[in-house]
Amino acid sequence: MMKISEGGGELALIELIRKYSAGADGLEMGIGDDAALVRCVDRYMIVTTDLLIEQTHFRMDINQPYLLGWKSAAVNISDIAAMGGHPTYTFVSIGLPDVDVSVVEGIYQGMRDVCDKYGSVIAGGDTVSSECGIVINITQIGEVEPENAALRSKAMPGDAIIVTNTLGDSSAGLKLLLGGERVDSDNMAHRELIERHLRPEPRVREARAAVQTGSVHAMMDLSDGLAADLPKLCAASGVGATVYADRLPISDHLRVSASELNAEPYILAAAGGEDYELLITCAEEDAGEVIEVIHATGTAAGVIGKITDGDEIALIASDGLPGPFPRSWEHF
Amino acid sequence: MMKISEGGGELALIELIRKYSAGADGLEMGIGDDAALVRCVDRYMIVTTDLLIEQTHFRMDINQPYLLGWKSAAVNISDIAAMGGHPTYTFVSIGLPDVDVSVVEGIYQGMRDVCDKYGSVIAGGDTVSSECGIVINITQIGEVEPENAALRSKAMPGDAIIVTNTLGDSSAGLKLLLGGERVDSDNMAHRELIERHLRPEPRVREARAAVQTGSVHAMMDLSDGLAADLPKLCAASGVGATVYADRLPISDHLRVSASELNAEPYILAAAGGEDYELLITCAEEDAGEVIEVIHATGTAAGVIGKITDGDEIALIASDGLPGPFPRSWEHF
Repeated sequence: MMKISEGGGELALIELIRKYSAGADGLEMGIGDDAALVRCVDRYMIVTTDLLIEQTHFRMDINQPYLLGWKSAAVNISDIAAMGGHPTYTFVSIGLPDVDVSVVEGIYQGMRDVCDKYGSVIAGGDTVSSECGIVINITQIGEVEPENAALRSKAMPGDAIIVTNTLGDSSAGLKLLLGGERVDSDNMAHRELIERHLRPEPRVREARAAVQTGSVHAMMDLSDGLAADLPKLCAASGVGATVYADRLPISDHLRVSASELNAEPYILAAAGGEDYELLITCAEEDAGEVIEVIHATGTAAGVIGKITDGDEIALIASDGLPGPFPRSWEHF
Repeated sequence: MMKISEGGGELALIELIRKYSAGADGLEMGIGDDAALVRCVDRYMIVTTDLLIEQTHFRMDINQPYLLGWKSAAVNISDIAAMGGHPTYTFVSIGLPDVDVSVVEGIYQGMRDVCDKYGSVIAGGDTVSSECGIVINITQIGEVEPENAALRSKAMPGDAIIVTNTLGDSSAGLKLLLGGERVDSDNMAHRELIERHLRPEPRVREARAAVQTGSVHAMMDLSDGLAADLPKLCAASGVGATVYADRLPISDHLRVSASELNAEPYILAAAGGEDYELLITCAEEDAGEVIEVIHATGTAAGVIGKITDGDEIALIASDGLPGPFPRSWEHF
């Protein structure tokens, strides 16, 4: 156990972090100069950035450094996927109180592993001290062929609305953690839900497969929950949407755990956040092909509703009656 | 006066910030999707990022939102200049407690103004709430022709060491602020020193002029102070350096204010931080040309010493006797 201040200060910390930054084609200069130098190619560069602050966005008492690192990078890679691209370079700014060096190593190992898995490289960043807990900002760079770039603004009335995998698990996992359940819970369903919350898998392969069909109209990732994110896609496209509650994909783990959580599975699926699944629209007749290529990556996908004229966003309950969406989480 | 929470929450905040993000050639999609899309050109892309945390890196009681925004973006643009490039896109992550909306507007106006002045565009970012004061992370993108990219690692024994403008003013300005002097001090010299601390000018034009001579060997910007930064350049290049104390460029404002600050001007110039001036090495016979093209941009520049064999970094005092550098500021 060694505090940062005992381990040689800032320069030693940068050396430690440099270990997690692998070389890569196209990266002329990574960590060690005023800035990173990246060779450009004849594509769109995609840039996304996310700021996470301890206590506000995560709590170290219910998390682990490795999983914090994984998720911090994963949610940014998810944004690259949501644009139809693949991730290339990850820039990590980190503000650290005088924590144990093993905490820093855990965070970077988690980032490194998710970057390795999805083809990105930690290429630079900033390390500073912090008097208010751990602060992490990740800027993720990616690239996409112009014809595959998927925006939120291209949904058309009549489109099918597709989501990948299942919704609501992450939100249930967070409820379990806040209720005192641990990452290594003995309950297998609980453990899986907690894992969905702490260790999301960005849907890079699924998104790439979808856009390469040429059929995707609009795409985004579900970070704030369907009830908050679908209205953003609809507003950007100038359309409305109808979603069928009984088509929301719900995992068995969520089904068996929901009653213990005093929650309706479909409410968690509709309003819970941090799913990091894809929300895709395409012409109804192309939905089968898009679902098929996503299935081929090993991930489920299905139609949950349709894009409509106007600006109404309706949730049709199991009894066939339309109602408002349950309320999602807001940042402020 | 309106708090963020009274002003419509996150979506309203994003709308407010969008006003500061101008369109630009090459920016296909700025704020409003999962990520920004930037068209690439046949150059190196430069990426740098900096994290600033209230209380740790800045204090709002001795600063103003506008100047905080200006400096946050300026120091990143300075890193782009230090690589020989020009800035293109600025991505701003901001964590905000429930401050007055005018604070947010001030910060973004400052960022916008320095971006406008040096040719960058605010192209995206992240806005989150913060329970521990204001947190700002800026990721600055830039570009540079491969032949003009200036690294820290190319200094050669015999090189002249050049710095732009004057050193130590920013450090003196910080001392004045910490001693209770205000931004709008009646003392003109004090006001200028404080301005050098709070409103640095990134040396983009100076750096571009220098690299375009083809004579620059190594270049970096002075952010942690000459005494901390020169060793980084020397370590990266595998060389030593000799600096002459009486050649350190010291402003008249610093000279007249130093005694009130109980400080030796040359110590502030050698060890003070946040100058954001350029540190350049080039062959001795090219120093005249490099200095001349920098002068032509309206900024002074001069030789302060030379690169040597070995790894010793020496400061020669006015009496001609060599001594160690005064100690610079460290992050941890």
